Amino acid sequence: MQRMVVGRLVRKKALFSASTSRAFKSFNTIAPSLLDLDLPDIWTSNPTETTNHHLPFLRNGAASDQFAAVIDGKSIADEIRSGIAGEVRRMKHSIGKVPGLAVILVGQRRDSQTYVRNKIKACGEVGITSMLEELSDDCGEDKVHNAVLKFNDNPSVHGILVQLPLPQHMDEEKILNAVSLQKDVDGFHPLNIGNLAMRGREPLFIPCTPKGCIELLVRSGVEIMGKRAVVIGRSNIVGLPISLLLQRHHATVTLLHAFTKSPEEITREADIVVSAVGVANLVRGSWLKPGAVVIDVGTNPVEDCNSEHGYRLVGDVCYDEAVKVVSTITPVPGGVGPMTIAMLLGNTLDSAKRTYRFG
Amino acid sequence: MQRMVVGRLVRKKALFSASTSRAFKSFNTIAPSLLDLDLPDIWTSNPTETTNHHLPFLRNGAASDQFAAVIDGKSIADEIRSGIAGEVRRMKHSIGKVPGLAVILVGQRRDSQTYVRNKIKACGEVGITSMLEELSDDCGEDKVHNAVLKFNDNPSVHGILVQLPLPQHMDEEKILNAVSLQKDVDGFHPLNIGNLAMRGREPLFIPCTPKGCIELLVRSGVEIMGKRAVVIGRSNIVGLPISLLLQRHHATVTLLHAFTKSPEEITREADIVVSAVGVANLVRGSWLKPGAVVIDVGTNPVEDCNSEHGYRLVGDVCYDEAVKVVSTITPVPGGVGPMTIAMLLGNTLDSAKRTYRFG
Repeated sequence: MQRMVVGRLVRKKALFSASTSRAFKSFNTIAPSLLDLDLPDIWTSNPTETTNHHLPFLRNGAASDQFAAVIDGKSIADEIRSGIAGEVRRMKHSIGKVPGLAVILVGQRRDSQTYVRNKIKACGEVGITSMLEELSDDCGEDKVHNAVLKFNDNPSVHGILVQLPLPQHMDEEKILNAVSLQKDVDGFHPLNIGNLAMRGREPLFIPCTPKGCIELLVRSGVEIMGKRAVVIGRSNIVGLPISLLLQRHHATVTLLHAFTKSPEEITREADIVVSAVGVANLVRGSWLKPGAVVIDVGTNPVEDCNSEHGYRLVGDVCYDEAVKVVSTITPVPGGVGPMTIAMLLGNTLDSAKRTYRFG
Repeated sequence: MQRMVVGRLVRKKALFSASTSRAFKSFNTIAPSLLDLDLPDIWTSNPTETTNHHLPFLRNGAASDQFAAVIDGKSIADEIRSGIAGEVRRMKHSIGKVPGLAVILVGQRRDSQTYVRNKIKACGEVGITSMLEELSDDCGEDKVHNAVLKFNDNPSVHGILVQLPLPQHMDEEKILNAVSLQKDVDGFHPLNIGNLAMRGREPLFIPCTPKGCIELLVRSGVEIMGKRAVVIGRSNIVGLPISLLLQRHHATVTLLHAFTKSPEEITREADIVVSAVGVANLVRGSWLKPGAVVIDVGTNPVEDCNSEHGYRLVGDVCYDEAVKVVSTITPVPGGVGPMTIAMLLGNTLDSAKRTYRFG
């Protein structure tokens, strides 16, 4: 294939250390703030200069003979949670306050009940107060709305989480819009998403799962700037915000969805692949470029008669195939999942710090 | 090159005609509303089925021997403006009201003065009332802020436009944030951008230039769904929102910026290329796939001693080269430019209709 290179890209040195006065340094994450990431785009056309086509990977060479490095999301999340616990103690000791998270759970979905239980348990472990409002499936929308308003007004609540999905008869958008922006620790409010997308802006909260994915990449030493990233799946809560976030980190991002033709060809061009579709084993080994980095957000139950509960969890990526091709991969479970809860705790801590102006 | 196809994409029929109750039908544009565009993403994995690799183009074959179809933006914009003028007359006749646009111009920049003059002239031609607040370069930020608040409170103003760029000593974000969401006809407010990005949401206003680009594509019979689109440049006012908008139209979008490696290779994979960088002739013929569709947003002055003013305007795309390769292209000037003003008039009309509940 003929490759012509006629574009020269001039880069300014990344000023990651130069914090602006507006940039808010998040809890003990190590990813730089979005405002600190903003760099001028300087394009020039220069037909004589060439650039390198082949990007450096964490590990190169005869990739099919070796196994990928596996990112231990649980251990990274544990480290972050331990840092959060320390900050909560320091806050309690200094000003006599602790962060508070309110969770609204509507209905009896087993998976939602499990998620909520895990979140509340995690709060307890780091010293964050949690409040749970359980409502029945057939309660009126106004009851959920009122629960949101009550927590909006409660000064000891710094984060409000409406467990999704809500029952079908409820207007999810309307209820989520009622959550105070200052307490939207999920980061799903469109104003937060707009500020996530726009250069020069910073959302009050970055959605937890996307924030966790970036943290895994940064802590694993994966360079994002200038890399080709493919995000598979465009949900409002994972795929879309992770694509926006990778863009703010200066990756060249392609967002794939179910109307994409030949997703396997496009994915094969990516240095970083994030899959958040919810289809077991959608992404095969043949979809992946040797040496790529894979972040698998999918958590899909598949039948397994050898397992205690009759099923086990697998990701969107066919792990056994991928591990022979890529340089780095997150496992399912134990990859992105634990990071989501850690980021939720961190966002709640950040919110309380902002409220009490506690640095 | 080996191409393996292991993903089958199930598509639901586009329900473009099925308008939802929330979807707002814009003035006489023909692009469907964003909510009407929302379709479920249904992914399945099926290793046996194959898909077509080569997408249909408007024109195919020995592309280098034939010239591209040139999209006449001026004539399309004239048609839209004539429709807007008819709607404004109907509104005046029915309820005795006309739309009003307020423009705030700070400083003496020649280009800004020209843009503002053109916008005000265009308002007059379709019967929209315009108000101009001119402030000096060295006026305080509070003066600009107060001008915004004054127009926010003025019931005969339905759109407020702060001509950018503002003088460097002013906080652009703060001033733009002060513009009432209901009058943000530029669509630059982060809440509008968030709603533009998120499935199931609809912004009050779609930014004018991106909206004009989509309208040119749709009116030229270019199918967007399932096509690979590359947007070159990621400004908050053009590149970023056009990438979000193309995604809502189900293109597979890659957003390129100055940190992208080998932009020419990525661009060469695109069926639709939108360039909004502001570098004359950045995109060469060799960057383009035969049969691609090119929307050139760039408007760059280059020296030309044969021209009356000593310069002429060219796009980001090297037109003479591109026209031999692609199937369809917008010229500069006379392509996207006239559409931007037409969309501004349309957004102002929509805003007035919304205010007066005039259908």
